[in-house]
Amino acid sequence: MEKIMEFDSVELSVDGREVVILDQTLLPLDEKFVTLTTAEDAFDAIRLLKVRGAPAIGIAAASVLAMCMNRFSGDDSAPFEREFVRVKDLLCSARPTAVNLKWALERMERRYREYCRTCGNTTSISTDELRRALTQEARDIKREDISMCESIAENGLTLLKPGCGILTHCNAGHLAVSRFGTALAPVYLAQQRGYAPRVFADETRPLLQGARLTAYELMKAGVDTTLICDNMASLVMSRGEVDAVMVGCDRVAANGDVANKIGTGGLAILARYYGIPFYVLGPSSTIDMNCPTGRDIIIEERPAYEVTDMHYLQPRAPLGVKVYNPAFDITPAALVTALVTDKGIFRR
Amino acid sequence: MEKIMEFDSVELSVDGREVVILDQTLLPLDEKFVTLTTAEDAFDAIRLLKVRGAPAIGIAAASVLAMCMNRFSGDDSAPFEREFVRVKDLLCSARPTAVNLKWALERMERRYREYCRTCGNTTSISTDELRRALTQEARDIKREDISMCESIAENGLTLLKPGCGILTHCNAGHLAVSRFGTALAPVYLAQQRGYAPRVFADETRPLLQGARLTAYELMKAGVDTTLICDNMASLVMSRGEVDAVMVGCDRVAANGDVANKIGTGGLAILARYYGIPFYVLGPSSTIDMNCPTGRDIIIEERPAYEVTDMHYLQPRAPLGVKVYNPAFDITPAALVTALVTDKGIFRR
Repeated sequence: MEKIMEFDSVELSVDGREVVILDQTLLPLDEKFVTLTTAEDAFDAIRLLKVRGAPAIGIAAASVLAMCMNRFSGDDSAPFEREFVRVKDLLCSARPTAVNLKWALERMERRYREYCRTCGNTTSISTDELRRALTQEARDIKREDISMCESIAENGLTLLKPGCGILTHCNAGHLAVSRFGTALAPVYLAQQRGYAPRVFADETRPLLQGARLTAYELMKAGVDTTLICDNMASLVMSRGEVDAVMVGCDRVAANGDVANKIGTGGLAILARYYGIPFYVLGPSSTIDMNCPTGRDIIIEERPAYEVTDMHYLQPRAPLGVKVYNPAFDITPAALVTALVTDKGIFRR
Repeated sequence: MEKIMEFDSVELSVDGREVVILDQTLLPLDEKFVTLTTAEDAFDAIRLLKVRGAPAIGIAAASVLAMCMNRFSGDDSAPFEREFVRVKDLLCSARPTAVNLKWALERMERRYREYCRTCGNTTSISTDELRRALTQEARDIKREDISMCESIAENGLTLLKPGCGILTHCNAGHLAVSRFGTALAPVYLAQQRGYAPRVFADETRPLLQGARLTAYELMKAGVDTTLICDNMASLVMSRGEVDAVMVGCDRVAANGDVANKIGTGGLAILARYYGIPFYVLGPSSTIDMNCPTGRDIIIEERPAYEVTDMHYLQPRAPLGVKVYNPAFDITPAALVTALVTDKGIFRR
């Protein structure tokens, strides 16, 4: 498939000695690319959300780990391994709860150990071969993510018609994942194939990922984009402008209940009321068979500051007001029309 | 009924020579009272939304008109009348589309003409008697508004139980109306009668009336208040925390469809899904029998700036993004459990 933009949100350079990321904290005002050349800079970039989105964080961490080892001089295997472990542990601590971060770094370590096993003894380890193996593994992680997104795009596209209106929430696109993203993957493919989709992007309070990131990346790709406040979704649906709701997912329980950004569950109820299909898109790896239902997922409560102060010129609520700020909500499986994954479309 | 706060949002002084308003543009950070002594200051206060809320604007305009005539020196009826017309026309132009503003000023003029008619000829007109009549009329407008709110409070209270959770949207309370407000009237009465109500206030994007005004006035009155983003209403309802939704109304069509702040219609759908009663509260005068259905109400589209820039430190959406910003939406009558007015509770 064609690339949808002239840049990726995370890119390991051809020589493997630099990782370039788009600083997402400055969007949508400034489009600034940051070149990472040390583990410490990468730690800050991940911790400060310059790179965000679960898959993008994993790709960034693996790329940075490979980059650091490519820059590490010396052919002695013992200091090489010490540096590898140091960088891996440092990156892993940047966002301790990010599952993809841990997963990608552990996959890099498995590749490291696998190479060492094939060497038999320590003396026959070539750090250059190790560098090549780690670089290839980081590129594979990204390539597989791109391919997964492309499969979601193809599967999701079968649900859309030319000229259709799609409502989305939060950001599960190019910036958060690779190339096509997840929730936005069918939109980008529809755009490439001349469907001229129209997208309504919820601004997604309190962190405004929809306004800052989704609107940015859709406009960048030339998609017809309309920004709305979260509370306008019902009116837009009532006017017949929405043919499908497409959202991403943080986790899908074994029974099909979906955990995703706060506000997703309410959208599913509105879509049901108006008879609009509600699609959840994500990699098949998001389905957690060890989690029986949505009730077994604990909902993270985030700081009140995000609701009362963040982004504002001055506080917009009385000092000391009680605030609810749950990070996500649960959409019951019964409200999900279909789950669209890289492995296919699942309907109840 | 007891007063719920130590101040009113609009107050004509005992001597009738000053109008004191709470500057609502500075809330919730600063609680600043402004003393109005000229028509020009009052014009600015209304135009700049220092006083807002349909009934509050009407009360302010009538009070200012009486105040200006009390300050006008001279007993000659011709210049007195010229000043009356000048002030009335100036105030009326402050917010040309505000129905209550026009209504209150025309009522003041009717009182003026009525007095003149009873005098028979111009020479027997006493400007002092006119001043007293106008001052009384302004006080009557406010007194009737307070009494209307008290009736809504009593009627609405019959729908609540001790310890109940109420979800509200936008601001239809003390600041917008008189004393008890409309949507919040039963809450304040419940609080006075020891019901210990718990209120969830939607922040109400894009203008944040819920965060800035509703949360402020509820906390001021000692009501247990929790601020939520609009997209969190479904989660709060799903947790069983909401026993009733109570919202105000801008206009009710003859068939019972309700026009109110954007987001109201979506809340009604969520309430229906969760089996929570959805109550619309307002003066019986809000029912417009000349408007057959909600489809006959034209929805005002407001500037994109309010969604992309207002309140923010820097723009939070890409430059030039298309934006929807409808001022209100229509809740179909079928989703309204009951309409609570000063004249009683109406169910379909």
